[in-house]
Amino acid sequence: MYAVIFRAEIKRFDQSYSDMAARMRELAKSKYGCNEFTALTEGNHEISISYWDSEEQIIAWKQDPEHKLAQELGRSKWYKSYKVQVVKVEREYTSNT
Amino acid sequence: MYAVIFRAEIKRFDQSYSDMAARMRELAKSKYGCNEFTALTEGNHEISISYWDSEEQIIAWKQDPEHKLAQELGRSKWYKSYKVQVVKVEREYTSNT
Repeated sequence: MYAVIFRAEIKRFDQSYSDMAARMRELAKSKYGCNEFTALTEGNHEISISYWDSEEQIIAWKQDPEHKLAQELGRSKWYKSYKVQVVKVEREYTSNT
Repeated sequence: MYAVIFRAEIKRFDQSYSDMAARMRELAKSKYGCNEFTALTEGNHEISISYWDSEEQIIAWKQDPEHKLAQELGRSKWYKSYKVQVVKVEREYTSNT
């Protein structure tokens, strides 16, 4: 399993951001095979993590036309800076509380 | 580079949690070689990510006596549930905005 860690400093969020984020989440899952998506925002910082079965899916998703537009808007409008890390999940464990 | 993704649902946070979290962050960096630590909390959810040069460092850190005590307190007191994922960073890119 692979994941994409997205960490950003937010410049400004507005309704168009919320709409786009919801649309991108839905598109990633329905069309590109994203298994899970989680995101948290605190102050002007955001972390989102998406999970995928393969790197090929991640590459296809990155090149989706709607997603490319969202990325451009992110750079120009919503984010001050961001970092993207593509990672391979080596092992995981879950609490049983 | 490796990272540890910690995702949790919070049961209850108090001052003892804040003190312990600060102590653990300092210990991971000073004694076990953690390169970077970032954490966000929104509502009753938390994501924290720590970065490391090797898996050996992560294993040593997991077994630290003070950290083991913190893990026990986390399970019994602070967290409702959590998931830990050890990941290998395959590639990364940063915005130049």
